[in-house]
Amino acid sequence: MRIVKIVHKTKPSWGIVKADRVILLKGDPFERISCAGESIALAQARFLAPAAASKIVLAGLNYKGHAGELGMKIPKEPVIFLKPVTSLIAHKDNIIYPKGVIRLDYEAELAAVIRKKAKNIAEKKVKEYILGYTCLNDVTARDLQKKDAQWTRAKSFDTFCPCGPWLETEIDPASLAVKSYLNGKLKQDSNTSNFIFSLECLVAFISRIMTLLPGDIISTGTPPGVGKMKPGDCIEVCIEGIGTLSNRVA
Amino acid sequence: MRIVKIVHKTKPSWGIVKADRVILLKGDPFERISCAGESIALAQARFLAPAAASKIVLAGLNYKGHAGELGMKIPKEPVIFLKPVTSLIAHKDNIIYPKGVIRLDYEAELAAVIRKKAKNIAEKKVKEYILGYTCLNDVTARDLQKKDAQWTRAKSFDTFCPCGPWLETEIDPASLAVKSYLNGKLKQDSNTSNFIFSLECLVAFISRIMTLLPGDIISTGTPPGVGKMKPGDCIEVCIEGIGTLSNRVA
Repeated sequence: MRIVKIVHKTKPSWGIVKADRVILLKGDPFERISCAGESIALAQARFLAPAAASKIVLAGLNYKGHAGELGMKIPKEPVIFLKPVTSLIAHKDNIIYPKGVIRLDYEAELAAVIRKKAKNIAEKKVKEYILGYTCLNDVTARDLQKKDAQWTRAKSFDTFCPCGPWLETEIDPASLAVKSYLNGKLKQDSNTSNFIFSLECLVAFISRIMTLLPGDIISTGTPPGVGKMKPGDCIEVCIEGIGTLSNRVA
Repeated sequence: MRIVKIVHKTKPSWGIVKADRVILLKGDPFERISCAGESIALAQARFLAPAAASKIVLAGLNYKGHAGELGMKIPKEPVIFLKPVTSLIAHKDNIIYPKGVIRLDYEAELAAVIRKKAKNIAEKKVKEYILGYTCLNDVTARDLQKKDAQWTRAKSFDTFCPCGPWLETEIDPASLAVKSYLNGKLKQDSNTSNFIFSLECLVAFISRIMTLLPGDIISTGTPPGVGKMKPGDCIEVCIEGIGTLSNRVA
């Protein structure tokens, strides 16, 4: 099932994608999924990020190859960081290139959205707590990431967290091709089977630190092949079984 | 004026402290302050953190002495990081000592709460965007902060952000005594006049990165004298003109 969040009559509304239509839901999909009996054409939908995030938690350095390309060691435990919810944008929204940033990078990632409150959960129970999977672009001002002790500034600008286009509920996150295309040219090409820490391991680890709430986003790190974007570029994150998250740099 | 957030008839409610009473407000205090015509005894109030945070942004290393005691360089630009909103607790709530943490530290800080949406604001305009000032304890698992490349894990556990007891609206943040007491014993004793970056500079800097929303919290870093807490300890953050934020470690 594909769960989308769109703008309907100027308000956020959840729906299910069926062929070329979006079947609207009553309320949100966290507790249960109930159709409202109305639908709109998918082609006319204005997408919102498919989440209701009180927080966005990301893993750093979760593919061996990416740690290597940044000259960083492979971590023994997950490295986590946060993006503010103000950085979140949807499929087809523009990434705003901030004034003063020298190098703006894309980072294609698989993300999970939390379905119910989670604290201290076991790895083998994680799937019960996940509503679905989506594409995420961990946009990073690489010059600021190298300059600052902490990654927060480099990763927290408004529009630095494109996420979407929808949540796919019926895939196995352990073996999915993850790719990015810059202006149609393949840049990142890996598979979640190359994770250092599995998605279940990451969610369980994070839930031992902080309570996860319905709609929170957990992202799993990016594979090697990161590179820079300039204004006018089109960046696409493509994940097997989900689809393509496409954004332009403005 | 002292603006509090309390539990009233099982719901969050904002109020104004007048002597030993809390005068309840209609709605929230961001747009305008309007009394509801009801009051309760301050001594019986159950406090909530005086904020409505979509994010909590903190400055690191903002007093020369604290950078020194951690063996870190004085930064040329502010160092910022985020705490998740799930870490937020109020005056008199318990700090939960997480399993596996070896050294749990207090960090007394002056914090500001945002009144209206702020993006790219000038330093000299910052005060218009602030609702008031409060005490904050940037609780930190010091062993994890030293171990991890990023500070996120060390600072993001549930209950690691005590904040309160209320917002004081009529003080000048440039020259306030900031102290902490552990079990009644003075541990930190400095003044915001020792800031490396002023509160206005920090808020303006952060607003160039991310949009600040009403109720967001900005914290200004801690002075030297940080130290560890153990279960049963009482930690107090005292700021001149505001009052005392008191929490026990459980």
